Amino acid sequence: MAAPVYEKKALTKKSENIADWYHDVVLRAGLAEYADVKGCMIIKPHGYALWEHVQSVLDAEFKADGVRNVYFPLFIPMHLLQKEQEHVAGFSPELAVVTHAGGEELAEPLAIRPTSETIMYATFANWVQSWRDLPLKTNQWCNVVRWEKRTYPFLRTSEFLWQEGHTVHADEADAMDMVLRALDWYRAFYEEEFAISPYVGLKSAGEKFAGAERTYSVELVLPDGKALQAATSHYLGTHFASVFGVNYLDAQGASQVAHQTSWGLSTRSIGGLVLVHGDDSGLVLPPRAAPEQVVVLAVGSKSSDNAHVQSEAANIADELKHAGIRAVVDTDLLHSLGYRINEHELRGVPVRLEVGARELADGKITAVRRDTLTKSSVNRSDIVTDVQTLLSDIQSSLLERSEKLKRELTKEAATWEEFTAIMEHGKAFIRAPWCERPECEADIKAETKATPRVLELDRIDEHIETVCVKCGEPAHRRWLFAQSY
Amino acid sequence: MAAPVYEKKALTKKSENIADWYHDVVLRAGLAEYADVKGCMIIKPHGYALWEHVQSVLDAEFKADGVRNVYFPLFIPMHLLQKEQEHVAGFSPELAVVTHAGGEELAEPLAIRPTSETIMYATFANWVQSWRDLPLKTNQWCNVVRWEKRTYPFLRTSEFLWQEGHTVHADEADAMDMVLRALDWYRAFYEEEFAISPYVGLKSAGEKFAGAERTYSVELVLPDGKALQAATSHYLGTHFASVFGVNYLDAQGASQVAHQTSWGLSTRSIGGLVLVHGDDSGLVLPPRAAPEQVVVLAVGSKSSDNAHVQSEAANIADELKHAGIRAVVDTDLLHSLGYRINEHELRGVPVRLEVGARELADGKITAVRRDTLTKSSVNRSDIVTDVQTLLSDIQSSLLERSEKLKRELTKEAATWEEFTAIMEHGKAFIRAPWCERPECEADIKAETKATPRVLELDRIDEHIETVCVKCGEPAHRRWLFAQSY
Repeated sequence: MAAPVYEKKALTKKSENIADWYHDVVLRAGLAEYADVKGCMIIKPHGYALWEHVQSVLDAEFKADGVRNVYFPLFIPMHLLQKEQEHVAGFSPELAVVTHAGGEELAEPLAIRPTSETIMYATFANWVQSWRDLPLKTNQWCNVVRWEKRTYPFLRTSEFLWQEGHTVHADEADAMDMVLRALDWYRAFYEEEFAISPYVGLKSAGEKFAGAERTYSVELVLPDGKALQAATSHYLGTHFASVFGVNYLDAQGASQVAHQTSWGLSTRSIGGLVLVHGDDSGLVLPPRAAPEQVVVLAVGSKSSDNAHVQSEAANIADELKHAGIRAVVDTDLLHSLGYRINEHELRGVPVRLEVGARELADGKITAVRRDTLTKSSVNRSDIVTDVQTLLSDIQSSLLERSEKLKRELTKEAATWEEFTAIMEHGKAFIRAPWCERPECEADIKAETKATPRVLELDRIDEHIETVCVKCGEPAHRRWLFAQSY
Repeated sequence: MAAPVYEKKALTKKSENIADWYHDVVLRAGLAEYADVKGCMIIKPHGYALWEHVQSVLDAEFKADGVRNVYFPLFIPMHLLQKEQEHVAGFSPELAVVTHAGGEELAEPLAIRPTSETIMYATFANWVQSWRDLPLKTNQWCNVVRWEKRTYPFLRTSEFLWQEGHTVHADEADAMDMVLRALDWYRAFYEEEFAISPYVGLKSAGEKFAGAERTYSVELVLPDGKALQAATSHYLGTHFASVFGVNYLDAQGASQVAHQTSWGLSTRSIGGLVLVHGDDSGLVLPPRAAPEQVVVLAVGSKSSDNAHVQSEAANIADELKHAGIRAVVDTDLLHSLGYRINEHELRGVPVRLEVGARELADGKITAVRRDTLTKSSVNRSDIVTDVQTLLSDIQSSLLERSEKLKRELTKEAATWEEFTAIMEHGKAFIRAPWCERPECEADIKAETKATPRVLELDRIDEHIETVCVKCGEPAHRRWLFAQSY
């Protein structure tokens, strides 16, 4: 390990400046760093391990549902991208374009995929012929590029990693089942793995995906009251199918235009994880997602004989690993105990066990929870079950904390005065009746920077008789508004 | 399933035209197809499942050795790429270059990574400070782009998928251990998973990686006697470390230049698998790599009551799955039996079980091995153990077949007349004494298209006193020559 340069400077406090705090934590916890390419990041081992967890959980869900992985080219010829008008208009400003290759200027420039609808659906038109070919369910794990002016590691980078699911269905009902199933995988992932309770619902016309009929999303409530769009699922209707010729012959032999969906979750999810759970000591990882769930720390002075402590620390780690717990051992007595503890806290390891000569003599081990930083004493003989209980407690209390945060940061507003007062006094999610008109959406954004984040799933069928919080026109449903990252 | 358009035309025979046969099999077995982008391919579900197998096996090896996955940007600024002279000279002709992004011309064009040494090592210079930071062992799974004039799916495409391992060591000995360990992972992968016996050894100066001190490779012997370079492992010496400043302080506090390695295996491996084992009926997959190891086929006429046969086929598939065998069931009685059998053979499923009313009444199931297309009868009651034995037999006999092919297609040549005679009468690998001079390498290639493929690992320390098969200069070791794909 290199010289402990980070000891010199404390982390920015999360409550004082969440942007600076985020930047500090991402770098110092070893999640990512800036690359020598504008807007791009280097995902370091600790950060990439979190992404591998995302991949393993979601990929298993996809496969169990019959979704099959594929890989389509990185390059999209401009003529394909331009086929769906709304889509190209949405993505054109962010494109990176290859104009030269193999030492020659290309006859047609190639866009680097910002998303793969267009290149995939040109091929789906061949794959889908008959109703027997449906549903066609595919996914790919890949990199995409959307050129950004202002970037933050994970949250907004010119290149990012994601999965994009793309499916074709016979009708709207089957496509919508898929859209909502994918959305629910994402919700469940955030709740069960990342211990984050999100809002889930429908996007407004102004916030939907370029080319979609309807977009649904998972929105995280961040500690500063802002919103992070953390996954999306789109019902594309027949918009793309019509222009790319994704048609099928139904059972009666008649030609029908197919209905399509696409849905994705990206490395941005890791930014959300950091922001929701992290504290002034660094990262706080929920046990289910943590690459290292437990660190067993051998405690002792450099001078004394620590062989017994070191071997017992290793034994404990082995016992935990044997029980399926991701445990590591830290027997590095060259660095100070304070430095070692700081490093593990910074990296968010959920449980730290401290093993010293006195503890061993007493048959007791000190256990420290990362979420509360509280200490307890566990019997050496019960170590496996006690650690399992602790991990499970941490997982559920992080989720509870997130639910509490969400509750506290969600306000109701019936009038525009209430709405603007809330947005001025610290940010929050605001639930308010809205007319759903794009012009009104633009006015709200211009005045408060807040945008409609979602119409919650269980409020889509709501029908109230009231007026829009902003413009006074008739409103029938209450939307959630917030400033987004 | 779409209309069986492929029934209309038989596959090209492998022995008649292996290039056309390969093209037919890749498309019709559903491995890949051409994209609407020059030189790029679409990897379809069946092909991608093979790549996922490669990933799962190798990734587990890497992790067990302490290699950690990372992700570096797709884009490499030209100034970084140009730092190592030999490296940039080797890759410049194949670069794809982004000149415009976000609607503006870039101040400095960005190359799309053809490999990531330069962008990674600029960062490794920061990650490595002291001898305590070594070895640094990283890997990434990603896409790379090398613009190609002539392309074949999997074997040579402008964009391909691979893993690239990159490590930093204190000295040559530790780095060389890593180089040979990675090489051995690749050899073991080909032998144990793909049932292919490769040649493994050192590359010549003319064939080594641009910027490496020494390159080692795994070479497959293809049925037409040509060679396919199927994985490489490079000892980079201090070439890159010197220009990127990857230095460390040793235990005595003195600054040292680090030694580096890189090693990779790509989607080309799937092309090798197709070429080595496939036959005139299509793909032949070794059971360990096959996404579907067994297909249970319900046999019956459309008109009769097949409920019992279909449910028994499903039961058998369930029993096999329960025993950890990747089994699928095919109860589609709408298509002809011949069509269904063709499709499964084309896709290379190792074992086909045929379940019909008569078989069930007799308590016997017909089992057909894909490698030999021979039938046997197995007892319904012994189905799981019999299928396990069959799968294991197929795996080992495919490896034996590959060993036999390698033996038969390897010739010895002591004189240039023998060498050229072998290359004229059908291709082969030729083991011959060689002077190892670059000029002589160029002469051999110009005259016969053959290049030195490798100096086998167990012949590196050989020292014979003889003359070069081509030029008559002193030669001390026997190299393997062949035409490469």
